[in-house]
Amino acid sequence: MNIELVTIGTELLLGMTLDSNGAEIARALAAQGVRVTRRTSVADRPDEIREAVSGALHRSGAVLTTGGLGPTRDDVTKKVIADLYQVPLEFDASVWANLVERFARLERKPPESNRSQAEVPRGGLVLRNRWGTAPGLWLEGQLGLTIMLPGVPGEMRKLLEHEVVPRLRARASGAVIRSLLVRTSGIAESALAERLGNIEQEVDPLTVAYLPSVAGVDLRLSAWELAPDEADRRLRSAANLVRSRAGESVYGEGDIDLASLVLEEARSLGLRLAVAESCTGGLVGARLTEIPGSSDVFLGGVIGYDDGVKRELLNVPEPLLQEHGAVSEAVARVMAEGVARRLHADVAVSVTGIAGPGGGSDAKPVGTIWIACTLRNVTEARRLRLAGNRHEIRARAAQAALHLLYRQLHGLANR
Amino acid sequence: MNIELVTIGTELLLGMTLDSNGAEIARALAAQGVRVTRRTSVADRPDEIREAVSGALHRSGAVLTTGGLGPTRDDVTKKVIADLYQVPLEFDASVWANLVERFARLERKPPESNRSQAEVPRGGLVLRNRWGTAPGLWLEGQLGLTIMLPGVPGEMRKLLEHEVVPRLRARASGAVIRSLLVRTSGIAESALAERLGNIEQEVDPLTVAYLPSVAGVDLRLSAWELAPDEADRRLRSAANLVRSRAGESVYGEGDIDLASLVLEEARSLGLRLAVAESCTGGLVGARLTEIPGSSDVFLGGVIGYDDGVKRELLNVPEPLLQEHGAVSEAVARVMAEGVARRLHADVAVSVTGIAGPGGGSDAKPVGTIWIACTLRNVTEARRLRLAGNRHEIRARAAQAALHLLYRQLHGLANR
Repeated sequence: MNIELVTIGTELLLGMTLDSNGAEIARALAAQGVRVTRRTSVADRPDEIREAVSGALHRSGAVLTTGGLGPTRDDVTKKVIADLYQVPLEFDASVWANLVERFARLERKPPESNRSQAEVPRGGLVLRNRWGTAPGLWLEGQLGLTIMLPGVPGEMRKLLEHEVVPRLRARASGAVIRSLLVRTSGIAESALAERLGNIEQEVDPLTVAYLPSVAGVDLRLSAWELAPDEADRRLRSAANLVRSRAGESVYGEGDIDLASLVLEEARSLGLRLAVAESCTGGLVGARLTEIPGSSDVFLGGVIGYDDGVKRELLNVPEPLLQEHGAVSEAVARVMAEGVARRLHADVAVSVTGIAGPGGGSDAKPVGTIWIACTLRNVTEARRLRLAGNRHEIRARAAQAALHLLYRQLHGLANR
Repeated sequence: MNIELVTIGTELLLGMTLDSNGAEIARALAAQGVRVTRRTSVADRPDEIREAVSGALHRSGAVLTTGGLGPTRDDVTKKVIADLYQVPLEFDASVWANLVERFARLERKPPESNRSQAEVPRGGLVLRNRWGTAPGLWLEGQLGLTIMLPGVPGEMRKLLEHEVVPRLRARASGAVIRSLLVRTSGIAESALAERLGNIEQEVDPLTVAYLPSVAGVDLRLSAWELAPDEADRRLRSAANLVRSRAGESVYGEGDIDLASLVLEEARSLGLRLAVAESCTGGLVGARLTEIPGSSDVFLGGVIGYDDGVKRELLNVPEPLLQEHGAVSEAVARVMAEGVARRLHADVAVSVTGIAGPGGGSDAKPVGTIWIACTLRNVTEARRLRLAGNRHEIRARAAQAALHLLYRQLHGLANR
């Protein structure tokens, strides 16, 4: 079953509100095997609503609208859709009774302007709203199915869950749309695409979306309109194929944070962790301590932004800074080893680099980063050349440091 | 001038991504007096893109698309739109040269799959992307105007600002919708609303939106469809009224970061800065170092997550920890003073608290935070009781620490 969403509200066109309703509905429907084929946002204007709803019904035979059901002047959805279906609006005494009762509980009476909320297109089914004043409506006719929900997120959500999803589930064929996110770090989108090749067709048909961000490139594998077991099986085998081709770049699946994987590995090995940060200025520590329960593994660290702090707190020798510069393999190594010693940590990671926009040179352009990880007296260092603005370079450097830490710990755990 | 937005990406229809690009573009265009009349999201499928773009051009004569310009298989926007305009795609050597140069800076070569990114519809103007690989395109013809931007938010934003907005501004008529953001911290939305009263009607009509976030409560003042000068005048007088009523809670206007205000004040006073962080784990340092040029003011800090680190690196005496606990006024004060001494800083801020979800008690529930600021041998401390989950409590604590730092520095500067 296909459906389109039409979210109604001038604020959506001014960009002052994110269309979170649309995203939430799309997720809920996909989980039921209902495929959202288009999302449209229009202003609270009758002609624009009419054109959008009519186009959606023409293309997909079903539409779900949000917004425009309240008592105010700009709430016109119901009237427009009734006209489109060529049915009159009729006063529904039971809806009005519910409204009166609702106001009575707050020791008030509904104002006359609320009477319009009790009007229902002839033939429409009222989706009772126990969480607000505007009921939802379910209207079927020659044009197809139109579901109208209020725009207030809390009310929309409840009506969706209690009134819409059960009805759609009964209609849908049992087929679902399922997705699986495979997370990678340290590899560019194009390089990843070359390694993976055409996995969309290789196993069983599914779609692959590349989602690059500062955390790395995520792959969303989606299986469409299948029985749940079959969808899961295809996703599993495609994910395994991705892992076998992308190797160490894959750090996990689903909505996980690399920082929590690092903490888990360290915890299972009984190791305590420290950080020494220059250009990231506390970002790696912040990522690790964002995870609840990090205090049993993470000791703390030194933000050695100034070279004086690197010397005094991280024991980086002045001659080393003079000879190699603060952004160098030698300094990254000593920073990691220095913080591990100073904090009595078993494992430590360091970051030093040029986040820009200033500070770059021909030899060390903006985006040049050294990271190092010391674990049981063995120190591994990596040089990175990161793209982006200051924010992106720092976020990517922090992610790369966590990734190095994870690989070292994971390697030790599986040895 | 009217325009429609078409955001392209199957992930938008699965509800897995919020359409934040669409909201951001709508805001930027409204500010130029360009009216967004519809937003549509469609899948990465040629027929759906074609139908959406063609409908938008038919209705509004102008459309801005995002997404589908990358090098991977699912990126088809350019081809579909060239077909719609009945023009061929042509290889553009200068776009390719930019791409090669961009990869060269990262010491890599672009893979063959990137060649498609150098293809341009005949007659199209290339909007050079200095922030990523996919250039934007500006195509005009009998069908109207189509602007294509990449879907990656950072790149979209830069191209919008530098390439699209100036061109549209030149076209648009005189009336604008302008907004001004007044930023507050340390005051609840309801308390702020009481202090402000009905300023929407008091001066000249404008609208006020309260936007609470972990950074504080922002106020968006908006003046609608006015000549630019009149809009600015109204916003200015309303902002002054807000400042006179909300006092010290207001720290600035517009898209500024409290961290950059802190750095500016310290810089103008010639003071050098350090941080000592427990529950924020590096977040305050990360906020400060996110600002370009922070290195002339910010020395670094100590992440004293574990009490051992507090003792050894911040000189917090063990008896103090025993008597008062790590989350206490006494420990917060000693942490700030300790890090200032250790790093030879003129001013330092500390944070210690219980971010949850565990670790709370009746006496010190989750959300209890102590912050302290030491400046020229005077230390000020504050206790906070913050609401929210772990992430929110930490972000609010970091913001409160920066706000305390800012008020102390600002007070000294104006003494």
